[in-house]
Amino acid sequence: MTKNGKFITFEGIDGSGKSTQARLIQKFLRDNGYPSILTREPGGSTGAEDIRRLLVEGEPGRWSPETEILLFTAARRDHLERTILPALEAGKTVICDRFADSTRVYQGAARADLRDSVDQLHKLMIGREPDLTFIFDMDPEKSLTRGLARKSGEDRFEEFGLSFQQKLRAGFLALAQEFPERCLLVDGQDTPAGVHAQIRPPLMALLE
Amino acid sequence: MTKNGKFITFEGIDGSGKSTQARLIQKFLRDNGYPSILTREPGGSTGAEDIRRLLVEGEPGRWSPETEILLFTAARRDHLERTILPALEAGKTVICDRFADSTRVYQGAARADLRDSVDQLHKLMIGREPDLTFIFDMDPEKSLTRGLARKSGEDRFEEFGLSFQQKLRAGFLALAQEFPERCLLVDGQDTPAGVHAQIRPPLMALLE
Repeated sequence: MTKNGKFITFEGIDGSGKSTQARLIQKFLRDNGYPSILTREPGGSTGAEDIRRLLVEGEPGRWSPETEILLFTAARRDHLERTILPALEAGKTVICDRFADSTRVYQGAARADLRDSVDQLHKLMIGREPDLTFIFDMDPEKSLTRGLARKSGEDRFEEFGLSFQQKLRAGFLALAQEFPERCLLVDGQDTPAGVHAQIRPPLMALLE
Repeated sequence: MTKNGKFITFEGIDGSGKSTQARLIQKFLRDNGYPSILTREPGGSTGAEDIRRLLVEGEPGRWSPETEILLFTAARRDHLERTILPALEAGKTVICDRFADSTRVYQGAARADLRDSVDQLHKLMIGREPDLTFIFDMDPEKSLTRGLARKSGEDRFEEFGLSFQQKLRAGFLALAQEFPERCLLVDGQDTPAGVHAQIRPPLMALLE
């Protein structure tokens, strides 16, 4: 029987370098013979990508925070069922760019009283937590410049502005304290090679 | 201060005549000076219509029952916030073709153990129940012929076949017994004028 793989998430504000680092670490795993997949949220499966388009395109006020939580949870359920769990069951390491922690932090920053609904929905419909979460920390003025510079057409969250990004940063730092058993802070202002060097040892300790 | 409007839902299997009757009753209300709106689920608001397209198009196995519940609840939350509640607060009668009862019955027929998740999600994210629900009862062999004959391109549920439609009918009948305080059974095999005559008196009793 194949041993189940490990589920690793990369979290943090947009522009913090987490997506680049997720790609780098998956390349490292592949080059070193560890079966793995790289995936992301919202999205990561055919259905979840369809839901992603509803979430990331359009005006900031397109959805209420409550509807948004439901859509994120729907996309996550599809992603979990069709991409993450099958890969873990096949013994692969799953590297995932954003997961439930992003919903906790983004919705909590939008309206603090939503955190309880987010947690109840997660418990009811998702359940699964990562084995290890890297939280990328960075000065929001720097990350916001990076994020908007990409002009991906998926800027609905970034358009909420600097003060919102500062709340998000505080939210991710609080989350690292709330779940210390699985969260590790990463200094996102280090060089790409430096950040990679922060991530590799704890990941390899988990996989070996 | 305007008195809040009443929230009326039409439920039953596809092809049972409920959509036609919803239109007829709204015309009746309009012609008699009762402010009202006619809406439907899934859909009924801009965002919910976007979610509707994900739900009604594509293969039967496109979504798992759990993901489907989340998408229906997301669409319902948007519809409630942006269409139903504003109309009720403006004193209008809201006639709604399908609401939470459809999710209870369709998902319960797909997998009985889902009913608890449906109820918990409803309690957490929706809360609101109709003031009056008409449940259209009909022989599924007749309604299925009508439904498929429409060829709307939105046949994902109807394609589950006759035995599924029979489970749905039983589910709607059970629901009428579960919520007797707000549910009224309607004989959908009556003529259109006959069905209209079944609906009008209890509705007008509520509105007057």
